[in-house]
Amino acid sequence: MEAPETLLSQFPARFEGSSSYLDLTTVIALSVFFALLCACIIIGHLLHENRWANESITALLLGLCSGVVVLLVSKGKSSKLLVFSEDLFFLYLLPPIIFNAGFQVKKKQFFKNFTMILLFGVMGTVISFCIISLGAYVIFSKIGLTSLTVKDYLAIGAILSATDSVCTLQVLNQDETPFLYSIVFGEGVVNDATSIVLYNAVQSLDLDDISGLTALQLLGTFLYLFFTSTLLGIAAGLLSAFIIKTLYFGRHSTDREVALMMLMAYLSYMLAELMDLSGILTVFFCGVVMSHYTWHNITEKSRITTKHAFATISFISETFIFLYVGMDAFDIDKWRDTKASPATSVAVSATFIALVLVGRGAFVFPIANINNCIKRSDSSKIEFRQQFIIWWAGLMRGAVTIALSYSKFAESTDSTSTDCLLITCTIIVVLFSTMVFGSITKPLIEAVLLRHAKPMVSDATEFQSLEDLRFLFIENGSPSEPGQDNENQPRRRSLRMLMTNPAISVHYLWRKFDDRFMRPVFGGRGFVPFIPGSPTAEEEEAHENS
Amino acid sequence: MEAPETLLSQFPARFEGSSSYLDLTTVIALSVFFALLCACIIIGHLLHENRWANESITALLLGLCSGVVVLLVSKGKSSKLLVFSEDLFFLYLLPPIIFNAGFQVKKKQFFKNFTMILLFGVMGTVISFCIISLGAYVIFSKIGLTSLTVKDYLAIGAILSATDSVCTLQVLNQDETPFLYSIVFGEGVVNDATSIVLYNAVQSLDLDDISGLTALQLLGTFLYLFFTSTLLGIAAGLLSAFIIKTLYFGRHSTDREVALMMLMAYLSYMLAELMDLSGILTVFFCGVVMSHYTWHNITEKSRITTKHAFATISFISETFIFLYVGMDAFDIDKWRDTKASPATSVAVSATFIALVLVGRGAFVFPIANINNCIKRSDSSKIEFRQQFIIWWAGLMRGAVTIALSYSKFAESTDSTSTDCLLITCTIIVVLFSTMVFGSITKPLIEAVLLRHAKPMVSDATEFQSLEDLRFLFIENGSPSEPGQDNENQPRRRSLRMLMTNPAISVHYLWRKFDDRFMRPVFGGRGFVPFIPGSPTAEEEEAHENS
Repeated sequence: MEAPETLLSQFPARFEGSSSYLDLTTVIALSVFFALLCACIIIGHLLHENRWANESITALLLGLCSGVVVLLVSKGKSSKLLVFSEDLFFLYLLPPIIFNAGFQVKKKQFFKNFTMILLFGVMGTVISFCIISLGAYVIFSKIGLTSLTVKDYLAIGAILSATDSVCTLQVLNQDETPFLYSIVFGEGVVNDATSIVLYNAVQSLDLDDISGLTALQLLGTFLYLFFTSTLLGIAAGLLSAFIIKTLYFGRHSTDREVALMMLMAYLSYMLAELMDLSGILTVFFCGVVMSHYTWHNITEKSRITTKHAFATISFISETFIFLYVGMDAFDIDKWRDTKASPATSVAVSATFIALVLVGRGAFVFPIANINNCIKRSDSSKIEFRQQFIIWWAGLMRGAVTIALSYSKFAESTDSTSTDCLLITCTIIVVLFSTMVFGSITKPLIEAVLLRHAKPMVSDATEFQSLEDLRFLFIENGSPSEPGQDNENQPRRRSLRMLMTNPAISVHYLWRKFDDRFMRPVFGGRGFVPFIPGSPTAEEEEAHENS
Repeated sequence: MEAPETLLSQFPARFEGSSSYLDLTTVIALSVFFALLCACIIIGHLLHENRWANESITALLLGLCSGVVVLLVSKGKSSKLLVFSEDLFFLYLLPPIIFNAGFQVKKKQFFKNFTMILLFGVMGTVISFCIISLGAYVIFSKIGLTSLTVKDYLAIGAILSATDSVCTLQVLNQDETPFLYSIVFGEGVVNDATSIVLYNAVQSLDLDDISGLTALQLLGTFLYLFFTSTLLGIAAGLLSAFIIKTLYFGRHSTDREVALMMLMAYLSYMLAELMDLSGILTVFFCGVVMSHYTWHNITEKSRITTKHAFATISFISETFIFLYVGMDAFDIDKWRDTKASPATSVAVSATFIALVLVGRGAFVFPIANINNCIKRSDSSKIEFRQQFIIWWAGLMRGAVTIALSYSKFAESTDSTSTDCLLITCTIIVVLFSTMVFGSITKPLIEAVLLRHAKPMVSDATEFQSLEDLRFLFIENGSPSEPGQDNENQPRRRSLRMLMTNPAISVHYLWRKFDDRFMRPVFGGRGFVPFIPGSPTAEEEEAHENS
């Protein structure tokens, strides 16, 4: 450099490294990530009309591109700006996504299809887990990969059973096909929880001591986790509703209300993890309860803020994860350490993808057809093209798969070349399924659902008739008109209903219980005054129907 | 443990440590912090009417208490759940607070008093820095502390010049005393930036090569940083306004708009840090520009969401910092490593507090009185009791002080006992000033301002008259009525105004420039349709006056 000529030319040089309190690599990584996130949002918005693209794929591709750029800039040394950490994913990115899912879910559809959701989400995941584990065991021994233990195969089964239905949910319309949407969405949430529980169960399994009781113990563990996690979530949600109703009522403070809701939801997740429960289930049900009670106890501005702020945070987390996964794909060290021929990598990845396809097919179609045999009415049967969509919706693998795979194969300091091979193949499965299956989803759903308008109509009719029934019920049984004469009629009706449609009756009984005991204590719609005609009045209506 | 009796009694034990993908200490630390944050909000709400308490002090006390509990539980080994990291503070907690400050600031008052704010924030901080450095040098040599270098003394001056006016701002009312509020608030923001710039300048100072040019170089550096940082912030804000206006107009998506605003604000901070500028100044001006342009380009729901979501995040960050500082106070290792007698600790802390009191007094009263001599009109003079409040408002020391002190004295691996002594004494100064000065603030302001209603009235009248003038101006000069006859009159008027009150004329010229060139490109109020009578219409009015 030339000698400084003026005073002014000196000080930028003098000031280099001025941010002595900040780590430069962190600042660079964060700058790049935030710039890429902005780019994702803008490009995703511009590509909104495009048939093949969506925000997940955009983020994934942008991540891949920047991975390549970083690789070139660092001259092949590294493609990583941030090391993928399971802590970052499970502590900060996943909770807001799941909480928002619970907060925005159409509760009525979700609980109406609860049995089907549990069947697909729990039993389906277990079937898929068994098939993938068994298949990997059989095929790997044939292609000469023999260094894996039984525990590794079981872990592979659990890791590859975690679906990612974000892509499909971006395409499915909650109003046009409420049944399909609630099944795909609900299964996604329950599947996340099930596969993580399965993974943890496999990790803590004592293989020297396997007996007939092991399966039963696993079942017991699962049920224990499921119920305690759910109860903890409900308790946290009710507590927040009670605190806000009791303390804040009449002297509202928007920022504090919103802060309290965010913090308590997050706290419920942390407590669940601390008690070794499923934080995902807890925070999901916390979201459901919060949207049913707490949301109605806060001011109108808080309602709008929570609705959109939670959705925004969830959206950013989701985009961040896809960006991250894309950027992580060119982890050159892992690729080098696999020491496997490209043929082996391709063979293992292809095996994985085939197993995913088969494993999912092996439960979606049987469970749906068993359901069709049991249900008598035509409207509650699942048509073949709906089964196909449900099958397709769960083919994508995402961040949970990556995170669990890292947790299993990268944590240990003595990662073997096989461990690295399994990680890189998991990444290939995630990339391939998200990009190939994901980009076909939109045209496929349009082709399957729109060309044959019948399922949509059947969906809509069913929804409509249920709507009518509910209004009949609630209007008569609501606590605002507790006339003695009216009281008997719905009761007789409810008895008749219980015979013809148990799900609706359960809903009716729940509404009565809710109105009598829960809402007076925890608030909720109707127990906190709201201004009619206000912007939330409309959402209120929408919420009412949810 | 007894032999397991039943199958069920086995599985909780089997499942211990099930969250194999999460670090237990992190989960515990986060759970405790989130629980404490919830407690802070609830207790702070209950103590709202209390004269002495506020949320900062509540958080600090709760932090102290839990520090003691952790110390007792760990049997005196450690009081720390999380290690205080400057990264956490400067990367994640400070930016949302400063951005929200810029986003919610009453722009008109801020820019009207801009000269005074700069005088207090820049010149005042420099004076305070000199006095504290010099004072520490003189007094420390008398009490026998001689191991410090000149650079250390200068760093102490910069560290102790960073004020924390959160406490005062919680008490001052923006509508009742707009002048005082804008001075205290604006000084706080500029002071944060100045002290960090000073600190960085001191750190990068080459002491072997000190000449008469050094001071000039520092000034040049400061001006360079100030202007480039401000420009970067304005550019980021305008870019966000332009993108949202161009791309999203007519096809709004609330979540994406909000996400884009958050991400771009954060990105501006990161870029500034990357370019070794002052991220604080950048993100502050980004917030100002976003509230002037971008905020008007988004949907009504996005407006409500951003307003409250940003405030909520800022509120949580603030509470978190105070909690953190409180919990950090019982850092037993640091206390042990000081190796100083309690008398020395008390002497050093008392010196610091005295220097803070003197250092602040040495610029508030002179600058205010010089201003009073220059200004002719009575209304723009600063009365003594206003000077007293301004002096008092900046006595508290907060998180910036702690963070810089850690950065200076704890980073190096060879922390001497003197370094530890300085850190513990800084913590004592922060605790003492926040709790003692902080809790007196509310009664003091009530006593000084409310018993003598005059300054409030003078404040209000001044504000009112300015209001009238502005309406006179804008109504005539607005682009919706560009009549040729009207055009001349305000021009003549504006000339007359320029003579009597330059600040108002600058404001008028700015409004004309804004209406003619800026708003058509970047949007803003009046250039995006909004529904009258809607909830934001009211806020719109409030914003209009800000």
